[in-house]
Amino acid sequence: MVNQISTKTFSVNGKTYAPPAAPVVVICIDGSADEYLDTTMAFDRLPNLKKMTQQGYRGMVRGALPSFTNVNNSSIVTGVTPAVHGISGNFFYDAAKDAEVMMNSADYLRADTILAAASAAGRKVAVVTAKEKLRDILSHKMEGIAISAEKANQAKQETHGIDGVEAIVGHPTPAIYSADASLFVLRAGVAFIENGLADFLYLSLTDYMQHTYAPEAEASLAFYEAMDAEIGKLLALGAVVGATADHGMNAKVKTDGSPNVLFVEDMLEAQFGAGGFRVICPITDPYVKHHGALGSYVVVHLEDQAKTDEVRKWLSIQPGITEVYDRATAVHVLEQPEDRIGDLVVLSGRDVVVGRKPKYHDLSALDGTLRSHGGRYEEMVPMVLSHPLNSAYTMKAAGDPRNFDIFDFTINGTN
Amino acid sequence: MVNQISTKTFSVNGKTYAPPAAPVVVICIDGSADEYLDTTMAFDRLPNLKKMTQQGYRGMVRGALPSFTNVNNSSIVTGVTPAVHGISGNFFYDAAKDAEVMMNSADYLRADTILAAASAAGRKVAVVTAKEKLRDILSHKMEGIAISAEKANQAKQETHGIDGVEAIVGHPTPAIYSADASLFVLRAGVAFIENGLADFLYLSLTDYMQHTYAPEAEASLAFYEAMDAEIGKLLALGAVVGATADHGMNAKVKTDGSPNVLFVEDMLEAQFGAGGFRVICPITDPYVKHHGALGSYVVVHLEDQAKTDEVRKWLSIQPGITEVYDRATAVHVLEQPEDRIGDLVVLSGRDVVVGRKPKYHDLSALDGTLRSHGGRYEEMVPMVLSHPLNSAYTMKAAGDPRNFDIFDFTINGTN
Repeated sequence: MVNQISTKTFSVNGKTYAPPAAPVVVICIDGSADEYLDTTMAFDRLPNLKKMTQQGYRGMVRGALPSFTNVNNSSIVTGVTPAVHGISGNFFYDAAKDAEVMMNSADYLRADTILAAASAAGRKVAVVTAKEKLRDILSHKMEGIAISAEKANQAKQETHGIDGVEAIVGHPTPAIYSADASLFVLRAGVAFIENGLADFLYLSLTDYMQHTYAPEAEASLAFYEAMDAEIGKLLALGAVVGATADHGMNAKVKTDGSPNVLFVEDMLEAQFGAGGFRVICPITDPYVKHHGALGSYVVVHLEDQAKTDEVRKWLSIQPGITEVYDRATAVHVLEQPEDRIGDLVVLSGRDVVVGRKPKYHDLSALDGTLRSHGGRYEEMVPMVLSHPLNSAYTMKAAGDPRNFDIFDFTINGTN
Repeated sequence: MVNQISTKTFSVNGKTYAPPAAPVVVICIDGSADEYLDTTMAFDRLPNLKKMTQQGYRGMVRGALPSFTNVNNSSIVTGVTPAVHGISGNFFYDAAKDAEVMMNSADYLRADTILAAASAAGRKVAVVTAKEKLRDILSHKMEGIAISAEKANQAKQETHGIDGVEAIVGHPTPAIYSADASLFVLRAGVAFIENGLADFLYLSLTDYMQHTYAPEAEASLAFYEAMDAEIGKLLALGAVVGATADHGMNAKVKTDGSPNVLFVEDMLEAQFGAGGFRVICPITDPYVKHHGALGSYVVVHLEDQAKTDEVRKWLSIQPGITEVYDRATAVHVLEQPEDRIGDLVVLSGRDVVVGRKPKYHDLSALDGTLRSHGGRYEEMVPMVLSHPLNSAYTMKAAGDPRNFDIFDFTINGTN
């Protein structure tokens, strides 16, 4: 592999990146609560992540809220908060249009991406995402390869920057509800570096496995072991690797194992009367086997704005609810875009999800007990780096590092 | 060692405990953020905690707030929240007496302890704490041994339930600002079981090392390795061991390494005028090398109660402040005793501490950079159990288990 790798410095969203002459690989292990690393490592099934911990760095970083996939993927590829990039979930309610609007499109992205800037600076960029839904945002204005595992066999040079993905990767397009959906992403990364097709990669996995299995389940242990093997290949290819997660994952169940749900619109109607509330669950997406549109974060729109503080106060002390903010406060405390949240923003506990009404949530498609995310208890996630931190970034890692600093840490922070 | 170990069931604070015929040892690794286990285990220096993870259980549990030592130790030995046991910090402001009152005394404890109930049920109970300040609360109404490492050489049969501690343990009374202060606690536990002096033990360490060293520091790695060796001896003696922490630990520093402090009383006076505010830092204690009375939790008393909501709103959106509650809400959301908090309760971020005014905080005695706790980002802590969970407690561990369920998990939850 003889490639000239560009080390040209580039800037985006107020940060400057000085990439090394080695392949740079940032991995978002979707839904990877730290417990998955803890448990799999204790069983000696993460030799490469263990080596990265020994030789590089492992610590905790704080994600963006809500702790959802597209919010945090948008933050990771832009390096900024949702207040800046504008993606606050999969859906928001546009009051002017009286419509619930899906945000899985770069049209809603308000910041440029590190990937586009890297490609403009001469890096061979590849973004591989498990779910097709993320591809548009992640590849915004970018030159290079942009594919999803879900639709790998539909990738074409004109639209995706590559032909014949399955042959190059050596694996067929995986089922989306599978461990392979994530493993394909990593395998594609390995193949693209091996073939000189990319030297600056963002590999974004899917959390089907974490939604379905607890860390100690054999299926999860085997999945993490297989991921680790691919990470080992990236390291062997000389890549500088940084891995983090978009959000954690917790069982959202009562002690009998049944889903622990607060239907917020029903609760509000029972307390304050029907008709005045619209609850939006911004976790809602087309992938039905993950969470049934139930996470630990919803927003509430009130017909009667004068009631906002009364409703806030009442919701704040309901068991299972952990935080409630009015719009102005949420902008500050939760780093939200003011026009894409609700009059109130509601977070729930480690074992609690918040929903709208039962009819909006179908849990029959789940493959396991309800495990989900979205709130404060899925905010903290691991960061693992292949190379040791330099002194400035050792300080930064000791303060309040963010998961969306992962490109910064991987590129600028390591020796 | 031929001892008849009582398996008599006992109940306290609404929970029933059915102890096994083996020594039961609960360890509170003071200030042990999960990162300490992650890093030390990655360097293969925690063989016994690794074995416990493989053969028993490792997961995360939620502590009591504020994430302080005596609050959580009180919760652990009673099995209940601060709202029930009444210990909400080291200090509270008693408005009726216009005095700041220290709570390091069982006089302030409003619940009975598991340790006292176990001793009444015939177990040979020993409590060993690193810091003398905790001994009174932990040994409340208890028959058996109750000593501190700090004053081990002052222990007497009449007052402490034991004579000649140093000879029995085989180590001298340690300096309180040392790794040995915690190791002595574990060594005492080992010696007491070996000598048939105890079969139901609570071993509560001190967080001087965690305040002083980050997880990757050699001093910390060596400390955890030495702790692990003592835990191995407890396991070899056939003990059922459960370990958790009272709180986590984070660097509270700016990117230049200097302390990242918000002096809340100064902030309030600058915004609202002097004289109307009293900020209490309930982390304040006599051990000066730990944190300079700076943690991520303070309470505020207002002269003019009518201003409460205005002040709450303003404080809520100050950078570095993460949560602000009025008294009634804090009782619910933070599980606090209403009469021992402030008109407002204030929490700060992962890298931020809150203080009163500079003159109340002396950081010159610190042995390292400022590392502290008290807020939400030190709430989640590890729980490691030597034996596998039974099915009911597997469910419980998957929901929202608490660090103060550790006696319940260790006694009732394992097979």
